[in-house]
Amino acid sequence: MDIDRRITLFHSPNSRSTGARILVEELQAEHDLHVLNLKAKQQREPAYLAINAMGKVPALLHGSTLVTEQPAVYMYLAELYPERGLSPAVGDPLRGPYLRWMVFYGSCFEPAIIDKSMTRDSGSYTTSPYGDYDAVISAVESQLKKGPWLLGEHYTAADILWGSALGWISAFRLIPETASLRAYLERFQNRSAVQRTLALDAQLAASQI
Amino acid sequence: MDIDRRITLFHSPNSRSTGARILVEELQAEHDLHVLNLKAKQQREPAYLAINAMGKVPALLHGSTLVTEQPAVYMYLAELYPERGLSPAVGDPLRGPYLRWMVFYGSCFEPAIIDKSMTRDSGSYTTSPYGDYDAVISAVESQLKKGPWLLGEHYTAADILWGSALGWISAFRLIPETASLRAYLERFQNRSAVQRTLALDAQLAASQI
Repeated sequence: MDIDRRITLFHSPNSRSTGARILVEELQAEHDLHVLNLKAKQQREPAYLAINAMGKVPALLHGSTLVTEQPAVYMYLAELYPERGLSPAVGDPLRGPYLRWMVFYGSCFEPAIIDKSMTRDSGSYTTSPYGDYDAVISAVESQLKKGPWLLGEHYTAADILWGSALGWISAFRLIPETASLRAYLERFQNRSAVQRTLALDAQLAASQI
Repeated sequence: MDIDRRITLFHSPNSRSTGARILVEELQAEHDLHVLNLKAKQQREPAYLAINAMGKVPALLHGSTLVTEQPAVYMYLAELYPERGLSPAVGDPLRGPYLRWMVFYGSCFEPAIIDKSMTRDSGSYTTSPYGDYDAVISAVESQLKKGPWLLGEHYTAADILWGSALGWISAFRLIPETASLRAYLERFQNRSAVQRTLALDAQLAASQI
């Protein structure tokens, strides 16, 4: 691929964009960071709302291509670096599960976790995007049990999405902390790109106080 | 691509899987239909819960690869038929917007529409996956205004996801019916694959009474 792969990542330390920064580190992707201070509400300022009208990080800019929404950012960035093997290609048996788990995160898992955290009803089966909380948690739990990674032996960008999210969701006790979840999080958090990013993010957060 | 592309689509007429059947028709994809009767609650029976534990259609089976979640099903199926041009390839300027709008649907749009339909609070900005309903609707409206299709001149699988969803959402009056929305839906509903699928689905629904 002979396109210029340098991207800009719109990022805030210790936020939903930390996972995107971990992916940048795993891929050793050429990048510039555009740092936002969430405490100063920079994500709600017009300059950033022009990038993402939802006022959320991460966002990714590649040339004139703008990508928002975590799973879209991950899929886009991982497939820019096919040689790193974090994005199963079309025809790979992992392609289907990869897309499924990327989409399931935002379409079922986050909605279920948010309903749980707000202790509100999930709605009827025909209305709800996910059905019921227990079915969602049990689907995630069965998948993690297979291990070592979300799709089996092969570590992919889906692990960075899920590893990051499960980290804070488990810290907030919004999911039962089973042995498979604990083991999965430990494997994920031991990766050098994760540790490197957390150290970089801690520095960045300190500079924003 | 010399793999066997024949898939099985798990489908119920007049449901969230109608769009997936439209995509099958647009792609002229080789397929078998596995029809579920939602009125008889077949989607809640153990046989189907083994396919999709969330009890939702569509699901797609390709060899031993199982894909669930509408946007994942669409992305997977569209990229099996690159020659039909419904899935912008890596390196195509539409690739980023394609992934973004595929993910935005389940991660922001459906959650916003469901909160609206249940007249419940969206939660704080840091909790909510989408921020606020008006920002979501306005993002969709600005995108449709550009037209003629969601990503501009080029019709993609994202139009089938959005065209189908906006059809029922607009029928339930959960989104303001602007001129651009009406024009977009009219263009979509005039496509022959859409009309063919609706006719096939009407027959199927009649056979299920």
